[in-house]
Amino acid sequence: FEEKFLESPEDWDKLRNDGSLMFQQVPMVEIDGMRLVQTRAILNYVASKHDLYGKDIKDRALIDMYVEGMADLNEMIILFPIHPPEEQDAKLALIKEKTTNRYFPAFENVLKSHGQDFLVGNRLSRADIHLVELIYNVEELDPNLTATFPLLK
Amino acid sequence: FEEKFLESPEDWDKLRNDGSLMFQQVPMVEIDGMRLVQTRAILNYVASKHDLYGKDIKDRALIDMYVEGMADLNEMIILFPIHPPEEQDAKLALIKEKTTNRYFPAFENVLKSHGQDFLVGNRLSRADIHLVELIYNVEELDPNLTATFPLLK
Repeated sequence: FEEKFLESPEDWDKLRNDGSLMFQQVPMVEIDGMRLVQTRAILNYVASKHDLYGKDIKDRALIDMYVEGMADLNEMIILFPIHPPEEQDAKLALIKEKTTNRYFPAFENVLKSHGQDFLVGNRLSRADIHLVELIYNVEELDPNLTATFPLLK
Repeated sequence: FEEKFLESPEDWDKLRNDGSLMFQQVPMVEIDGMRLVQTRAILNYVASKHDLYGKDIKDRALIDMYVEGMADLNEMIILFPIHPPEEQDAKLALIKEKTTNRYFPAFENVLKSHGQDFLVGNRLSRADIHLVELIYNVEELDPNLTATFPLLK
């Protein structure tokens, strides 16, 4: 696929005014004749198309539940650098606390409960891909946070 | 179904500690043998189960795109009352501006483009249900905001 960057304010004005952005927001992906906006709409479509979204609606419910939890933690990590300097220590402590007491134990428990290599349905799904991305982001903040989660390492 | 309210801090502690909340958060819905948390996971599952989520993955992509846009506006409305009093005028003006310049024109255009009664696939979907809820919420803030959108009234 072709990635296009907005390199000037004029690029942005043009895209915004030509009617291709449903809510005047990026990201937008042109795919299969659609101009998709909204991150979740794009990710859901790509995952469905490539069979990474479970074999039935119950698998999909588990995948959604896990992925939305990961999204909550990931959002905290992504927003971390834009907090004012005087708040960063407290934010970082909060992220570490949520990672080690809420999110990583939840995913470690899923893997432990069924003993399989993948989170859902004993096969690769988007949940595994998002989890790997999340673990990378967490390790970039602090490589020690995965230490007590052998199944996530 | 049975709705259970948390009526005391002890109720909350009990639920939180008995392991039934994957991320120690509500809402949680017990359905078809699952304990689902995360609002989107719950709504996606209920919509899938009741055939309100499109006939194929392209319909679903449109539904996701519309519903996520509605969720953005709805979130602004839901959070409106908890902003400090001195910020409320500015927040209300912003909500009105986004409603009339961004979101309502987008949905009006979808309906106008295909001339059908429903947003996606010429049949009822969760997108229509969320849109009705959104219109109610908007009208509660200001009943005049739908005035120039004949297809949304």
